[in-house]
Order: sequence, then structure tokens, then C-alpha cells
Amino acid sequence: MSSLKDVGERTLIDRMIGKIRRCSGLGPGDDAACIDADGVKIVIATDIVTKERHMPRGMTMEQFGWTAAAVNFSDIASMGAAPLGILAAVSLPPETDEGVFYDIMEGMDQCAEFCGTEVIGGDTKSGPVSVCGTALGICRNPPLTRSGAEPGDIVAVTGTLGSAGAGWYAALNDIDEKDAISSVMLPIPRVKEGLFLSENMIATSCMDISDGLSTTASAVCRSSNVGMDIMWESLPRGTGVGTVAKKLGISEKGLMLDSGGEYELLFTFRKEYLDTLHSSDIDFSVIGIVTSGDSAYLIENGRKERMENRGYEHFTSG
Amino acid sequence: MSSLKDVGERTLIDRMIGKIRRCSGLGPGDDAACIDADGVKIVIATDIVTKERHMPRGMTMEQFGWTAAAVNFSDIASMGAAPLGILAAVSLPPETDEGVFYDIMEGMDQCAEFCGTEVIGGDTKSGPVSVCGTALGICRNPPLTRSGAEPGDIVAVTGTLGSAGAGWYAALNDIDEKDAISSVMLPIPRVKEGLFLSENMIATSCMDISDGLSTTASAVCRSSNVGMDIMWESLPRGTGVGTVAKKLGISEKGLMLDSGGEYELLFTFRKEYLDTLHSSDIDFSVIGIVTSGDSAYLIENGRKERMENRGYEHFTSG
Repeated sequence: MSSLKDVGERTLIDRMIGKIRRCSGLGPGDDAACIDADGVKIVIATDIVTKERHMPRGMTMEQFGWTAAAVNFSDIASMGAAPLGILAAVSLPPETDEGVFYDIMEGMDQCAEFCGTEVIGGDTKSGPVSVCGTALGICRNPPLTRSGAEPGDIVAVTGTLGSAGAGWYAALNDIDEKDAISSVMLPIPRVKEGLFLSENMIATSCMDISDGLSTTASAVCRSSNVGMDIMWESLPRGTGVGTVAKKLGISEKGLMLDSGGEYELLFTFRKEYLDTLHSSDIDFSVIGIVTSGDSAYLIENGRKERMENRGYEHFTSG
Repeated sequence: MSSLKDVGERTLIDRMIGKIRRCSGLGPGDDAACIDADGVKIVIATDIVTKERHMPRGMTMEQFGWTAAAVNFSDIASMGAAPLGILAAVSLPPETDEGVFYDIMEGMDQCAEFCGTEVIGGDTKSGPVSVCGTALGICRNPPLTRSGAEPGDIVAVTGTLGSAGAGWYAALNDIDEKDAISSVMLPIPRVKEGLFLSENMIATSCMDISDGLSTTASAVCRSSNVGMDIMWESLPRGTGVGTVAKKLGISEKGLMLDSGGEYELLFTFRKEYLDTLHSSDIDFSVIGIVTSGDSAYLIENGRKERMENRGYEHFTSG
């Protein structure tokens, strides 16, 4: 057998799913699970954040707590569900100052308040700094999944792309890009947007961009058995992307396509809904079209190139 | 401020609860949270198991996975809820053999099957070996809590006490006590028992004994604002307790009262239900009575001694 770092998270999950009993509801494979509880659709997601991976330089423990809640609410949002609460399982070394724990919990509570809900429980253990959050939601409409995109649908994203990546590097290198830094320190779960899409039955598929656009688009293509043509020129460029890329000599495309920590929603919809979306207060950009192809392509200056699945992958990424 | 190891888990949680917004449902303070989802009562609990704390010598990774699920289903059971599913957030070092991950997940799946439900989702991250499980359940009757015990109620436990502790030491010291070892390697969440108590509206309070009887009894007394007189002679002695205590020269009382990993239920009920309980197939023992006192006491040979809160406490316990 191979080690986890040779296999990578996505293959590992695929192989594991083949080994355990099949889940009767919407189980492993989407951003969140969806189960039926006496006729009520409950959506639930769990995600671990660690100091190494999710704590940019200069992040406070309150912001770390906010982030731990936000990544989980983002999964709830991408299913089009309304948040019902969050649980926090917090690991900290025993010699940690107790204030650190309160700061983490206050950050989680603030993010929960932003999402219209509460911290409802948790656990504490000694260990390296990490928070395993679990967010709960309710779907009053059919849940949004990764698997419903159809050729001819329009591809869109909420907000902008790249500022989380730009903010991470800006914080690391003392580049004065406050808005980009703020977007990585206090990521906004797109709960309102996900709810709008599900309440109005607009989206044919939806997924949050937590591991970068390239990874997300590839995952939706695979789950929906479609392709995507994404226009480089249509991608909404986040604040700080140009400056940070230039100052550090790194690729703008890398920041826009492959940065984790973005937490915008990628969604597809039938074009007759374009007016409904434009007349709403949802901040979104059309970035491409769903095709009958087999994977996501980036079109730049008329040149079409396969989008590589370069986003963050646990165990294999550095 | 003090460090976590000076403060201890329970004080830490109490102080934290004062710092965040109050939860509108049953939130932090019981074994699981209970929230209302459009009229359906959803119960949810999250608990981290780590290699250091929950893996007795000789435990397989499948058994570790079973345990990770069992501790969470135990919290669901103690609320009298029916399990709806479990999520697994698994941390493993990148160099781990992929088979370890599948073994953990298969163990969780087997425990979920035992509890009549499924693994519905999860997450993986690199880190020291640990599993943060989250179990979900549904309460079709009022949830069992720690706070409803009243003077005159009878105190009971399911199953027996002490064999988890005995099994831990037996495994560590190569003592041939198979049943005790098996009880710590494959802990049984008392789902059927919890459901019986809630469906028949029998219990006035309930809590799982995951941190030892002394800690559990003290917690119920504190939450219910009552006392308890517990009879040493009535405690159902688990298999292996006598042998292990004798061979290792350790205290039987320590094994019976202060060992974690037990996962039986401590519950209180009005005495008119004694016949209903005796005529059911629930394996239980009456161990004492609820008093108007202020804490739990152990009565041994007619001598009454305050039960010290000596069970496992994270951060402070070794």
C-alpha cells in the first residue's frame, strides 16, 4: 500500500467510499451531507482547521476561530441551506494560556452571529492547535450539489477571486494590502447567496471554492459529467492580486485559480435565470459556460487550455 | 491568566460559556446539543479521540475507528435520541500507510451499523493521529438531560462498572482478561437503552459515564441541584476488576469509580417505574437514591463519604 502523501486526499476519499457501506442520503462527495430527519432535510459539514495550514502570519486567535466557523458555514452555504448552529472541537497544548481558548470561541461565536446562528456545543482536548468545526443547517428546498450542471448552463462565481491568496502572501511579506489581508483573516461564508440560489431554484450545481477555482471547477465537471469553458478575461479579479503578484514576481493566474481559502461559491444555472440574478442583490460574475466536454478548460486570448487540478490537496501539497 | 493545565477542562468550559452568546436550545453543558429544526428535535455531539488517550495497548486501527464512533453515539444515546449518522474528521501524519485510514473508517462504519446508521461525511487533514467524530440523532420525545433529577428518584446504571479501566490495565500488563480487554477495545454505546428510557418517559436525568462514575454523578448533582447517596455494595462490578486490581495492587474503587472509557449510562427515575424497567430487557442496576443534598456521596459499610470528582479531566489529568 502507499502512504497518504503519495495517494492524496481526493483519491483517498474515493477509495475509502468503496470500502464502507453506501450512505442512503447525500453522503461523502458533496460539500456537506444531507439527511432526512422525519421529513426535515438536515445538512451537516465538518472541517478541521490547523495553525499550519489556516493561520496566515499575523492572524489573531479570534480570527482563527472565525475562520474555523466560516469554512464550515461555507459548506452549508454551498448546499443552499440555512445555518442552524456550529460545534467546536478545540485541540490546544496544555500549557496554552486559557485566554487563547476564549478568543477562539469568541471568534467562532462572532462568525455564527454573522451567519444568524449560535455555537451549540463542542469538545476540548490536548494536542497541537486545531479546531474541528461542525456546522449544521436546514434545507427547505432541494439541496444544491456538485452533480446537476448541464451543457449550456452558465458558470458563475460570487464575489471575486484571488484576494485570499494575495492576502496570505501580503501578510507574509509585509505588503500593505489591507483589503486582501482582511479577506484572508476574516473569510465570509456566502450563506445569503447560497440561500438565494436554493430558494429561487436557480442553481443546477454549486460548490464552494475553498481549494481554489481549478480544483472546484474540475470537481463539478467530474460530478456532473460535463465540461466547462471558463474565460480568463471574465474572472473577477480580487483586490491586491495585481500588486502582490507584481511585487513578489508570482503568477496572477496561480493566485486567481489555485489559491485555497477563497470561500466564494462556484455555481451553474440555466441562462433564463440571468435576469433574476441580475435584479437580485447577489454579487456575482459570469465566468463561462458548461459544455458536453469532459473537464474544465481555461480560455485566454482565444487559446483553450485544460485547467489543471492544481488547488490545495491535503497530504500531497506542501 | 492561567494555562489550560492549571484551569482544567470543566472550569474552562464554564468560563467560556460566560463569554459567548447564550445558546437558545440545549447547548453546551449536556452530553449533546439539541436544536429545533422546523419542529424536529436534532441532537448533535462532537468528540475527539486521540491515539494517546483512547488507544489502549494492542488496539487495532479498526477498533480505534469503532471507538471514535462509539464515544459520539454514546452522547446521542444519553440524550435518548435515535442515531441519524456520523461524520469523521480524521487527522493522520502524511507518511501514514493509506490502509490505516481505511481501517479507521471501516471501524467507524461498523459501529455506525451497530447503531443502525451510517457514516455520512467527514474531512481529512495531516496531523497527529486523531479522529474528531460528530454524531447526529433525532429526539422524538423530550431529550434526557443532566438537570432533571429530583430528591427521592432512584439512581441506576446500565451494564457494569470498572471493566473498561480493568481492560486498559490488563492490555498494558499482559493480563489475560479477554472480556475486560474487549470492553475497552470495542465500547458499546447504549443507544437501545437511551431510547427505551426516553420513549417510555422513564428517566428524570441521564448522562454517559465516559469520564468515570464519580465525575458523572457529580455533574448530574450539580446540574440538577441535588445530592446522591450511592451504595458501594450495589455497584455492578465489571468483569476483570477484581483480578486486575489484585494482580497490579491497584484500587478496585479507582477502577469502578474513576475510570474513563466506560460508556454506560447513569440515569435517575421515579420509583414507580421500577417494575417497567425490571420487565424490560434493559440490563441495569439500582445503585442509589437522589437526595436533597448538594453532591454525590458513596456509602460503604454504612460509612458515608463525599465522592470526589476524580474522573479523567483533559489538560489536568496525566
